[in-house]
Amino acid sequence: MTSSGPPGTPGSRGVHPAWLPDEAFRPIGSRRTLLCGGGPLAGTVHEEVASACARYGGSVRRRAAGPDEAPEAGADDGAGDGADEGGPYDLVLALTTAGPLPAVTETALAGFRRGPAPGDGPAVGPDIGPVIGTAGGDERIGDEGYVVARHEGVTVVLADSATGLLYGLFHLVRLGEEAFGAARPAEHHRPAARLRMLDHWDNVDVHPVMGQVERGYAGGSIFWRDGALRDDLTRVRAYGRLLAACGVNAVTVNNVNVHATETLLLTDRLRDVAAIADRLRPYGVRVHLSVNFAAPVALGGTATADPLDEDVRAWWAAVTARVYEAIPDFGGYVVKADSEGQPGPHAYGRDHADGANLLAEALAPFGGVVHWRAFVYNHRQDWRDRSTDRARAAYDHFTPLDGRFRDNVILQVKHGPIDFQVREPVSPVIAAMPRTRVAVELQVTQEYTGQQRHVCYLAPMWSEVLGFRPWGPAGPGVAHVVAGDVADGAAGGGLVGVSNVGDDPYWTGHPLAQANLYAFGRLAWAPSSDPAAILDEWIGLTFPAAAGGNDATGGDDGRLREALHEIMDDSCGTYERYTVPLGVGFMVRPGHHYGPDVDGYEYTPWGTYHFADRDGVGVDRTRATGTGFTGQYPPPWSEVYESLARCPDELLLFFHHVPYGHVLHDGTTVIQHIYDTHFAGVEEVERARLRWAELAGLVPDAPHARVRELFAEQLRCAEEWRDQVNAYFLRKSGVPDARGRRIP
Amino acid sequence: MTSSGPPGTPGSRGVHPAWLPDEAFRPIGSRRTLLCGGGPLAGTVHEEVASACARYGGSVRRRAAGPDEAPEAGADDGAGDGADEGGPYDLVLALTTAGPLPAVTETALAGFRRGPAPGDGPAVGPDIGPVIGTAGGDERIGDEGYVVARHEGVTVVLADSATGLLYGLFHLVRLGEEAFGAARPAEHHRPAARLRMLDHWDNVDVHPVMGQVERGYAGGSIFWRDGALRDDLTRVRAYGRLLAACGVNAVTVNNVNVHATETLLLTDRLRDVAAIADRLRPYGVRVHLSVNFAAPVALGGTATADPLDEDVRAWWAAVTARVYEAIPDFGGYVVKADSEGQPGPHAYGRDHADGANLLAEALAPFGGVVHWRAFVYNHRQDWRDRSTDRARAAYDHFTPLDGRFRDNVILQVKHGPIDFQVREPVSPVIAAMPRTRVAVELQVTQEYTGQQRHVCYLAPMWSEVLGFRPWGPAGPGVAHVVAGDVADGAAGGGLVGVSNVGDDPYWTGHPLAQANLYAFGRLAWAPSSDPAAILDEWIGLTFPAAAGGNDATGGDDGRLREALHEIMDDSCGTYERYTVPLGVGFMVRPGHHYGPDVDGYEYTPWGTYHFADRDGVGVDRTRATGTGFTGQYPPPWSEVYESLARCPDELLLFFHHVPYGHVLHDGTTVIQHIYDTHFAGVEEVERARLRWAELAGLVPDAPHARVRELFAEQLRCAEEWRDQVNAYFLRKSGVPDARGRRIP
Repeated sequence: MTSSGPPGTPGSRGVHPAWLPDEAFRPIGSRRTLLCGGGPLAGTVHEEVASACARYGGSVRRRAAGPDEAPEAGADDGAGDGADEGGPYDLVLALTTAGPLPAVTETALAGFRRGPAPGDGPAVGPDIGPVIGTAGGDERIGDEGYVVARHEGVTVVLADSATGLLYGLFHLVRLGEEAFGAARPAEHHRPAARLRMLDHWDNVDVHPVMGQVERGYAGGSIFWRDGALRDDLTRVRAYGRLLAACGVNAVTVNNVNVHATETLLLTDRLRDVAAIADRLRPYGVRVHLSVNFAAPVALGGTATADPLDEDVRAWWAAVTARVYEAIPDFGGYVVKADSEGQPGPHAYGRDHADGANLLAEALAPFGGVVHWRAFVYNHRQDWRDRSTDRARAAYDHFTPLDGRFRDNVILQVKHGPIDFQVREPVSPVIAAMPRTRVAVELQVTQEYTGQQRHVCYLAPMWSEVLGFRPWGPAGPGVAHVVAGDVADGAAGGGLVGVSNVGDDPYWTGHPLAQANLYAFGRLAWAPSSDPAAILDEWIGLTFPAAAGGNDATGGDDGRLREALHEIMDDSCGTYERYTVPLGVGFMVRPGHHYGPDVDGYEYTPWGTYHFADRDGVGVDRTRATGTGFTGQYPPPWSEVYESLARCPDELLLFFHHVPYGHVLHDGTTVIQHIYDTHFAGVEEVERARLRWAELAGLVPDAPHARVRELFAEQLRCAEEWRDQVNAYFLRKSGVPDARGRRIP
Repeated sequence: MTSSGPPGTPGSRGVHPAWLPDEAFRPIGSRRTLLCGGGPLAGTVHEEVASACARYGGSVRRRAAGPDEAPEAGADDGAGDGADEGGPYDLVLALTTAGPLPAVTETALAGFRRGPAPGDGPAVGPDIGPVIGTAGGDERIGDEGYVVARHEGVTVVLADSATGLLYGLFHLVRLGEEAFGAARPAEHHRPAARLRMLDHWDNVDVHPVMGQVERGYAGGSIFWRDGALRDDLTRVRAYGRLLAACGVNAVTVNNVNVHATETLLLTDRLRDVAAIADRLRPYGVRVHLSVNFAAPVALGGTATADPLDEDVRAWWAAVTARVYEAIPDFGGYVVKADSEGQPGPHAYGRDHADGANLLAEALAPFGGVVHWRAFVYNHRQDWRDRSTDRARAAYDHFTPLDGRFRDNVILQVKHGPIDFQVREPVSPVIAAMPRTRVAVELQVTQEYTGQQRHVCYLAPMWSEVLGFRPWGPAGPGVAHVVAGDVADGAAGGGLVGVSNVGDDPYWTGHPLAQANLYAFGRLAWAPSSDPAAILDEWIGLTFPAAAGGNDATGGDDGRLREALHEIMDDSCGTYERYTVPLGVGFMVRPGHHYGPDVDGYEYTPWGTYHFADRDGVGVDRTRATGTGFTGQYPPPWSEVYESLARCPDELLLFFHHVPYGHVLHDGTTVIQHIYDTHFAGVEEVERARLRWAELAGLVPDAPHARVRELFAEQLRCAEEWRDQVNAYFLRKSGVPDARGRRIP
């Protein structure tokens, strides 16, 4: 039998399997498995195991309840080696609700309180536990959690819910042969954040400027094509499978900029959304919808969209009820309101809390949530006015509203105060809304980080964001805020990523950009994970032939792993070096945002300036002499950023305007740092390119060729960045490179 | 009877009549006219006069041959005051071929050789006479010429051809009541250049980036709409009428960038072109077509487009023959080849002469011409390479080919060496091709001069170009080159303008931009005309109510004329002041080219740089230390431009890179000049805006309101230019404004 995973496995369709190639299932598929548990998601688990067994000769037996009952209808054993149907098993996958379990699983369950699982209830309340822990007290496994152990030659996965069981199965896939090696004590895994969501900026109609996918660099949408739902949604199911395997549990299926056709998804085109939900549901992924705040007017339902108007409230209540009739596990609404031209409550003299609560009220009876984006600023700023600071905007808009949002409103905050630049400080809003559920939004799609033509592994940047401690080293971190794990804080809002996926055969355009999607899910589940370890997981899963399967101790001769770590671990640092220096941001070509244009946004209404002149560069955001943005942070950061001496070098120009001769902590001047990093960044790209070339033969030909071509473009573009930025600052400063290199 | 000119008069359709309002025909329409002459174009003359008489009570009698014959079928008298049908007449319009003429016309004809008119033969050979002259010798009136005189109370217009008679009629319209005042000796008018052409950059299909009209700022195309010929071509005829009234006799109906659908105009969609030709023919305007050099391949006719291939030659011959079957007076082809991505002969190892001659050969049997554009340069230049100079490109490409072009090839040269900037030197190509017919291309559409949102009367700039004497004060000027009026030179190629017309109610978006279209035609006819006098004509014709009709001695109280001269005469100078300093060019936003972006093109492949650094600005194009471009001029200009001391200030930065402290001839430094002119330019716009506001009531409400709104935008944009340019150079130079004004 050739490549043929469960329905939706794309291997046979010319679509790259990403981190779920058939080979990754060999350790499970070649063993004897007992699955205890009923229901549709347990059916997915069964399907996965059976499919693997069909390929690799193992077997699976399923029972929905007690051990003596007949297998559930529809469940059957995989083709196998004729092992005793009643046991013994190498692997037991069991719901704690599945009646009497084999003795070995009972042993593994010791220390856990067996109780009714929360079932498939709405994802409202917080259910945050430790990222990983060895079972000890009398704790529940939890909604999406699982316990994994190995005793007496049997690997056991236990979960309170079938979703947890599914996550446990993919945990074993990641472990590979290790899962069946030495004994291991019970480990309890639970996601840090309950909501781990990908937002698709996909348009239904092809937008005349932004195309099918706004800021998409991987082809068309997997959901939509030329104004309609795609006929074949096979890939949507395969996407759900990939997401479950990295821990994502929610997807928003349309762009936050909601145009005319997309407004109709809420009503006339709701069946399209339901069709997507049907494909994602087997993998525990819920569907959310971006809505137009003015939908009641746009769809002709009411004369106003005023959030305090009774007709408007009734309209949203009725429409939302119909959404839940069609999609009982619908996740909720995502809203970009009063931002970059989108409608919102301000038109009616209402504020963001009024607006968000309107929708929250409609969703509450069904357990849905509103993701209300905090990306609100004046995009018609006068560049002459240095007192207005876009960085301040979200804080200024939203902190006065803290405490006014309903508990099913999640304020979705971009990780930095500006807009997904390769280097920004963490947004002060995250630490400023103790009575509001906050989600942090990351950009998996590489709008400002090379647009999936450049290698840029983003996990280290995200890890820094999640590990940032706004109140200083003794306080909680960003990860705790989004997990709701802060004393006296609100429930967490989770982690949101803007998806980098399209209908490209590799899903992400650049084959190596798959690692960003994978890492997003893994960090959302376990924010304290080491980015290099995540990458290592991804390498093992994605390149099983060369890397010896997903078993790090297996046949891997180490060359591919080593090379990919060299190429990718610090690729985001490399990107930062050859692009925008010292945190100043936005030196990209206006509009498409690819490639350099140092002054491209300097005299525009977008609020993104560097203020370079012949003497110096940077934005003074201090309280003493600048815009006062530093005051939006709690101590110690309010003081650290304010201080020219203490401000971290990499953020120097974000917070301060300094002379070119200003000396950084490493002893180099700002101007020399600019030259040095730009030369270094290009050299690093060139080294990575050559390193990749050496992998011919180790990596399959097709992705190897694709990445090789992309490296040529990355190198060209990096040289363009180096030369433009260096030439710009040389012309402006007049300071020659201390090392005498050629600057054009 | 309400507003109702001849068919095509747009007054009744909500389209502005431009310089042909009904009122302009009152002096003719209220008098008794005899028209002697047959044929379709004389029919147009009759229609014009009869229509005017119907409105204003005069009469017209037409006879095709002798005075005793019956009027030609279809000719009839206008409603009138019952004047004697046999005479006397106030006005005689006569073809010299129309048999015995009234005595008074014979008097006027004295001094002119009566002979067969050249008829409607092809527009190949030169037929250039003096721009205007009092009849003296035994000369022919000439193909498009006319003689106008007034004797014994009768105004007489004589012409050898009906086209000439039509131009003579419009001459009377311009004169207004003056035409019927004091006696005037016979004046002989002939166009300086035989070809006076407008190129439309109109697309048939709406281009995804460039839209229906590339670089069009007046709405959609009057020819095409959404991929097809417009159903209603009434406006095309009205356009032809406006063109005849200012002297234009050729129109290219599609963009020089010939896309897929437009390639088909040559064959499958030829009937569309023929339909346009039918509408323009009554006004003596011929149709030309932009063609795709690769058409034989694109249309599937041949395997190659190699100009030396026999199949290709046969293909063009056959296709061209079919074009002339459909359009017997077809003008010819316009070609942009091997330029900005358009196909051309280079792909086959052939040169531009090979390419142009291929098409010329096909057109020659029918008297057609090829306009071959000289706008050829490397648009993928490396900005780091300062030795490549786009300004040099056309000369370097084409001068080696001088003498190799067939005599029905016209090399169409943009007036400056770069691309229609508000200030450029005259292209050296114009003086460098003595054995080639050269046409000069002007840009009536205001791509770089305010995009018809800014008042920018271009005639003074064009007049400067046409008056420029490449060989010094004693030699001929550009106007003589294009007229073929240079000793030992080739026949002239005429004047070409890129049209500024669209389906906007005012034709040109900005109502005052009509003056540019009008002035283009008038300068093409008579290049030595005074731009202010042309504007005066235009004012009188366009605003007859306020300006006292088109009779400058009439009821005009002078306020409107005076104000419009103040607003428009030096508006191009104003535009230059608030935009790009000292001839350096290209500081516009990339792509759409509207508004400032000082560095927008600085690090791009387009070859348009200013090289500003902290010490100075400008492009060194000297032979001594720069690109050597100055050497492309004959003396004295090769020396004048080379010399920092002698180079005209307004072109200083085009030819030299100078320090900001360089002192101009007027004693100010370059940097202070930049500041001063930018402040002055904005002040001039503000004065013009206020001046226009005062004209409320004098100008009809609708155009007054439109211009008022546009002035608000012009002022906003001018301030943006001032502030960006000044801020840019202040930041770079560090030199404060000597007058202490605020620079942001």
